[in-house]
Formats: sequence, structure tokens, C-alpha cells
Amino acid sequence: MTYDLWYWDGIPGRGEFVRLALEAGGIAYRECAREPGIGEDALVKDMLSERKHPPFAPPYLVAGKMVLAQTANILLFLGEKHGLAPGGAAERLWVNQLQLTIADMVTEAHDTHHPISASDYYEDQKKEAARRARGFRDERIPKFLGYFERVLAGADAWLAAGERWSYADLSLFYLIDGLLHAFPRRMCSVAAQFPKVMALHRRVAHLPELQSYFSSGRRLPFADGIFRHYPELDGE
Amino acid sequence: MTYDLWYWDGIPGRGEFVRLALEAGGIAYRECAREPGIGEDALVKDMLSERKHPPFAPPYLVAGKMVLAQTANILLFLGEKHGLAPGGAAERLWVNQLQLTIADMVTEAHDTHHPISASDYYEDQKKEAARRARGFRDERIPKFLGYFERVLAGADAWLAAGERWSYADLSLFYLIDGLLHAFPRRMCSVAAQFPKVMALHRRVAHLPELQSYFSSGRRLPFADGIFRHYPELDGE
Repeated sequence: MTYDLWYWDGIPGRGEFVRLALEAGGIAYRECAREPGIGEDALVKDMLSERKHPPFAPPYLVAGKMVLAQTANILLFLGEKHGLAPGGAAERLWVNQLQLTIADMVTEAHDTHHPISASDYYEDQKKEAARRARGFRDERIPKFLGYFERVLAGADAWLAAGERWSYADLSLFYLIDGLLHAFPRRMCSVAAQFPKVMALHRRVAHLPELQSYFSSGRRLPFADGIFRHYPELDGE
Repeated sequence: MTYDLWYWDGIPGRGEFVRLALEAGGIAYRECAREPGIGEDALVKDMLSERKHPPFAPPYLVAGKMVLAQTANILLFLGEKHGLAPGGAAERLWVNQLQLTIADMVTEAHDTHHPISASDYYEDQKKEAARRARGFRDERIPKFLGYFERVLAGADAWLAAGERWSYADLSLFYLIDGLLHAFPRRMCSVAAQFPKVMALHRRVAHLPELQSYFSSGRRLPFADGIFRHYPELDGE
């Protein structure tokens, strides 16, 4: 079965968490809103169509009769079905827990540039963004990355301590990638405190399973999505 | 087995989602940080103790050898183990998806009074809070509640369309309860647009399984947690 992935075109966004899992797992999928002649209008129309289990927002995945939304929920499904997470009940919940913690940091990273309203322009909330970004840089980056460092100290190469990566590793890679893009100065000054996190980032970047994706042109660069580089929001 | 629930004392907070599921399911638990002589210092100490799967933040649940954090993850576990959600794979993921959408709205509700930094006082971000709350009232409340209304239009009494409530119903009850507390004027002016959501709120409030909890004194009133009533953040 080929999955249908629906997400906004033009940004990696939250869809990228799902894409990385699909690509690293060698799982067939179509990126619907990027198909010729389809586009984002079709996404909105599809999202609002009558369904037993409607999505609240993209990304969502159509898997035969199932329609799954919420990034962590899609990954939970893919993880179980395609072996992208350890199989035991405790490990499966642990990977889900890690993913949800990553998702919390992603939301906070987004809100650094949109602390007032996601539907207003950044330019209309720049002052507030500067304040929110300061707290994120000074308190939240060390707190979250310190947590993942601690998890990795109790593991080997991968977050869930298995011999193989899980989808949470791919997600942490993307989160770090986004932070390096959005806050290069801050990340440069703190990276040495989180050697295991940074090593995991490099390890995923070199995963053989992801190289054809990375060189395919399908991987979109960061743009006006979650992770944005506004130099005025960055700092050591 | 009696579960150990760790959460801050003094506020219902995110712990309340877990409490409602435990109470409605008739599941034995201890509220550790409220035990005589224990308190929040013990919570911080316990949270930072050496563990295979450390929590990032409360609430977390100790279930024998397992330690589970992230509200939606704890509920996924309890739902499966104690039948607090339909049993099929598709329905289980659907309830998880609903819970995650509820959690997204909870985070946004929190950020109305803390748009700049969760670790600063409300008084230091009142102006920004007023702006964020306006967007939440005008755009986000209708969007989220409209979504849950749509889900309920395709169901019967309960979100997951089963004959019995699931933990997502308990969570939506608590979310609506929190919104009624924090934004009474706004909720009064929009409630008629979401009759099924408001009916579900009443239905859970009258669940026989929850009455002894509601009258026990264990249910804490809203205080300085997620849902706060600042009249200046409310409006029609």
C-alpha cells in the first residue's frame, strides 16, 4: 500500500517528521499537495471532507481506510506497523514519550517567532518574539537538550537504547537541524555541553537509509515554517 | 498494583487528565506529592533520580518497573491496559489523536497568560497576554471547538463513537471546564454554536463513575495553573 501524506507544500514543517520516518523506513508514499495539478487548495478541501476520523490540521496520512493525524500519532502507527521503533510495549511507549517531548520543544521553537498569534505576521510581533526567544535560548534550549543528553547517557547510540534507530532518533535529528538553522550562534555556544545529542544528529545525517532522500531534491530547505533564522532572535 | 502519580500539588494542571482517567476507571493510585511529609521537593528529587526512562516533566506515572511521562502517553497506556478506550487499533489511534488535539489547545490556553515565558510572572507579560488572549478567544476557541463539534456530529454521545466514554471524553470535559473557568464571557457567547461539545461536558460531569471523586475533596479547584481567570483576558 502506498500512503498518501498530506502536508503544506513549500516548507518541511511538521510533515518532515513523517517524511523522515517514511524515507528511512523505505516506505512508499505520495506527497499529495506536491503532485502536479493538486496543490494546497486540494489539501484544504480534502481536510474538510466528510470523514469518520477527520484531521484537525496537517500533516495527516491516509492509509487505506484509515486517516491519521497528529505527528506523534502518525509516527506511533508507522513505528508499530513498519518496525521503526522497538517492539515491546514499554519501549513503544517510551519512544512515544520521547516523540511528545520533542514535539513540545518544536512548539516552543515555533512560538519564538510567533508568540502572539500564528496567524499574524512576524513583523507585527517582533518585539514580543525577541523576549520569547531570549527565554527559549537561555532556559529552554539547555533544559530540553540537557534532558536528551541525559537520556542518551543511559543509552548507547540511539535514544531508545536499541541496536537500531527509532523514529524518535530521526525526529531529534530534525529538531537539532532546525535549531542549528534558527539559532546558529546559540547552538554553537552550547553544543559542547551536549556531545551525545550532537553526535546523534551527525549519526542520523549519515544514515545510509536517508542518503537517497537527502540527495533527491525532495527534502525542502527551511523556509517560513517552524524553524526560521531571524538573526535578531539568535544570540550567544 | 497501585500506581504512583507524581504531579505538582495545589493545582489540577495536566495531572488532572490522568486523575480523571484513573478515577473514572476505578483504578487505584497514590498522589505522591500530596502524601503527608512528601511534597514537591520529593517530586523534584524523584524526577531527577537515575532511571532508564526519565520523565522530562510531571505528570508521570510509576507503574511497577515502568515510568511513564507525557500526559497523552500515560493515557494511551491506561486506555489500553484498563479499557478506557475502544480496543481496535484504528480506534485506539483515533482516541490518541483526539487527546493530542486537546493537548494542543491546552498549551495554547496556557500561553494566553504566559505568552513570553512560563518562568516569568503574569504581571510581567500582561500586555502581551492581552494580545495573545484576543487571538485565542476570536480564532482558536471557535476553530478547536468547531472541530470537536464536527467530530461529535459524526458520533453519538461520545467522541470515539463507542457506547462508552473514552479517556478523550474525560479530557474534553476538563478542557471545557477550564475554558469556562478562564474565559466565562467568551464561552457564554459561543457555547450555543457548539451544542454537542457542551452536552458532552455536562454528560461527563454527571458520569456515575466520577461522582465520588467530585465530592471527595481530592479534586482541586483551578488556581495558578493552566486555566486562570484573569477578567482582562476574557471578552465576548
